[in-house]
Amino acid sequence: MEKARLEAFSDGVIAVIITIMVLEMKVPHGDDPSALLPLVPVFLSYALSYVYVGIYWNNHHHMLHAAKTINGSVLWANLHFLFWLSLVPFVTGWMGENHFAAIPMALYGAVLLMSAISYYVLSRCLIQHEGADSLLGAAVGRDFKGKISVVIYVAAILLCFVNRWIALALYYFVALLWFVPDQRIERMRER
Amino acid sequence: MEKARLEAFSDGVIAVIITIMVLEMKVPHGDDPSALLPLVPVFLSYALSYVYVGIYWNNHHHMLHAAKTINGSVLWANLHFLFWLSLVPFVTGWMGENHFAAIPMALYGAVLLMSAISYYVLSRCLIQHEGADSLLGAAVGRDFKGKISVVIYVAAILLCFVNRWIALALYYFVALLWFVPDQRIERMRER
Amino acid sequence: MEKARLEAFSDGVIAVIITIMVLEMKVPHGDDPSALLPLVPVFLSYALSYVYVGIYWNNHHHMLHAAKTINGSVLWANLHFLFWLSLVPFVTGWMGENHFAAIPMALYGAVLLMSAISYYVLSRCLIQHEGADSLLGAAVGRDFKGKISVVIYVAAILLCFVNRWIALALYYFVALLWFVPDQRIERMRER
Amino acid sequence: MEKARLEAFSDGVIAVIITIMVLEMKVPHGDDPSALLPLVPVFLSYALSYVYVGIYWNNHHHMLHAAKTINGSVLWANLHFLFWLSLVPFVTGWMGENHFAAIPMALYGAVLLMSAISYYVLSRCLIQHEGADSLLGAAVGRDFKGKISVVIYVAAILLCFVNRWIALALYYFVALLWFVPDQRIERMRER
Repeated sequence: MEKARLEAFSDGVIAVIITIMVLEMKVPHGDDPSALLPLVPVFLSYALSYVYVGIYWNNHHHMLHAAKTINGSVLWANLHFLFWLSLVPFVTGWMGENHFAAIPMALYGAVLLMSAISYYVLSRCLIQHEGADSLLGAAVGRDFKGKISVVIYVAAILLCFVNRWIALALYYFVALLWFVPDQRIERMRER
Repeated sequence: MEKARLEAFSDGVIAVIITIMVLEMKVPHGDDPSALLPLVPVFLSYALSYVYVGIYWNNHHHMLHAAKTINGSVLWANLHFLFWLSLVPFVTGWMGENHFAAIPMALYGAVLLMSAISYYVLSRCLIQHEGADSLLGAAVGRDFKGKISVVIYVAAILLCFVNRWIALALYYFVALLWFVPDQRIERMRER
Repeated sequence: MEKARLEAFSDGVIAVIITIMVLEMKVPHGDDPSALLPLVPVFLSYALSYVYVGIYWNNHHHMLHAAKTINGSVLWANLHFLFWLSLVPFVTGWMGENHFAAIPMALYGAVLLMSAISYYVLSRCLIQHEGADSLLGAAVGRDFKGKISVVIYVAAILLCFVNRWIALALYYFVALLWFVPDQRIERMRER
Repeated sequence: MEKARLEAFSDGVIAVIITIMVLEMKVPHGDDPSALLPLVPVFLSYALSYVYVGIYWNNHHHMLHAAKTINGSVLWANLHFLFWLSLVPFVTGWMGENHFAAIPMALYGAVLLMSAISYYVLSRCLIQHEGADSLLGAAVGRDFKGKISVVIYVAAILLCFVNRWIALALYYFVALLWFVPDQRIERMRER
């Protein structure tokens, strides 16, 4: 029951985040195809962020499905995670409008980094509540993917000032890494 | 349980999409009725898109109601479908602001086309998961309506550059075609 | 099950409608209290519309609670009702920005009128589906309040061009009339 | 059942409120880090309001979890509470854009005050419905925290015109006071 409402609220927030991002693509005035040209980087940023938010929704969905109950610290860890996720539309818009310039890209990476860290904190709060030997604890385990993502984000943020295409490639690489829904949990659940 | 959250999330995203479209109708400054005149095509675009998104919600609702469980590929096929649907407010606004000019209308058709294709992919993922001899598999069948829609969209996109009123008529025609909730599923369910 | 998703979707749409209306109150630039003055009619329009949308949510909630199942025509009647409701933020903004001028007020009334009519259609679709001797059919009955509201709206729209303060008073009067949740249904449910 | 829909609607409204607040952080034009400087107070206002809305969601969640059923006056008390909460994005934007000037800060406090009062009214409506000797009635008790918050808000609003940093500190202090989910209810539920 309690868990259901946490899921419903998170779904609501994530649904709004994913949808208002598209509002950053302002409708251009002319009907010329060239009027769309400045929107291409905005669209690419939107698509990348959509995949990121989608991945988080998927994994959030899987993780909470494996959990049985929640407590007060899980509620706050979840709100903390949603806070960083709510900043994604802003940094997506800034990165897109400035055609992947170095500083907006670094800030974009910083928000991804904070989202990853806060998601990690959320998973630890859940495991602490459920016990390390619970279904969830066993499934998440040492969370190699979560830790390596943080390392790659830090590397990518620094690389923004050297070669931002490598940084962008790293952002895409982490997305790919997480694209597959968390199989650890799926595998555990089948047993 | 899992299915419930997929439905809830999709409902959230579709509810926001359908509602933020109305934000493209900017409040005019004067209180003259003539101040509303430039908004007429924006309103007509909004009404058409509202019907389209409403149809998708209805059919999505019916299709998932017939499904029993979901898996990882259904989750992603659903997010892919919602991605194209989330672009509807943008192309609706562009088409409306340019009074149904050819290129915005073609782009509008392209987003409808991609939505139809991604919805078709979603239905195939669900059937692959449930089995072709499941309730859902039998109900959707060869999906004639889904395939003919794709053909009409392609024709309409090309016709935008010849006679855009025929193209617009075709967009309305497909909407009409789908207006009735997917009776195949409704019929199946009654048995 | 089916009904649950219709309710969830309607809740989502109404929640977004009620919340984006507040976006029409643009943040003023100065920090002077006089900077808020032009926002007073915008705020009053917002408060009136908030009450209206709240009333509709309440009654929608009660009506669907009394219903047992739904069908395809209920789905579309509901989407039709939500379409008119989705125009409330636009007409609220226009009325507020023009300080209750005659034409924006008449358009506001027209949207309220269409909302009332489409809500009436929705209630008839539900009763046709459930049967006139169902709990819902008996509770709604001849729907005196629904019919008198339509008459008052028409009168108010015409009065906008004579004396708009009487028209505004009539809008408030209908809101008052509906303020109490639909007691017919509440009474029926208790039996 | 009834309660579930009230929760779902409130979750929807609160999810939209918390997410559209971020839209007040307009994407700056340049890619310079200095372009972000004017956004710092906007961001700080957003973070403070996010915590406030999060606290209300948490406590709303706890309070309704302890309630068994609802009635018409609870529905309206809840809509009244959500009305004041819906004004938070506006006052947050005004306070942020004017770098914590006195009058916007006082208005911000006034909206917090009205939210606190309307939340108190909601809790009284629930207790009146459930009975003072119910789980909820015993848990909320004399509601010391609710009453002291109102006193602090009034003090902070007045202090805005003397020293606004003390006022801001008081706003943060009340947030801290409520940060821990309502332990009275949590404690009661465990018994």
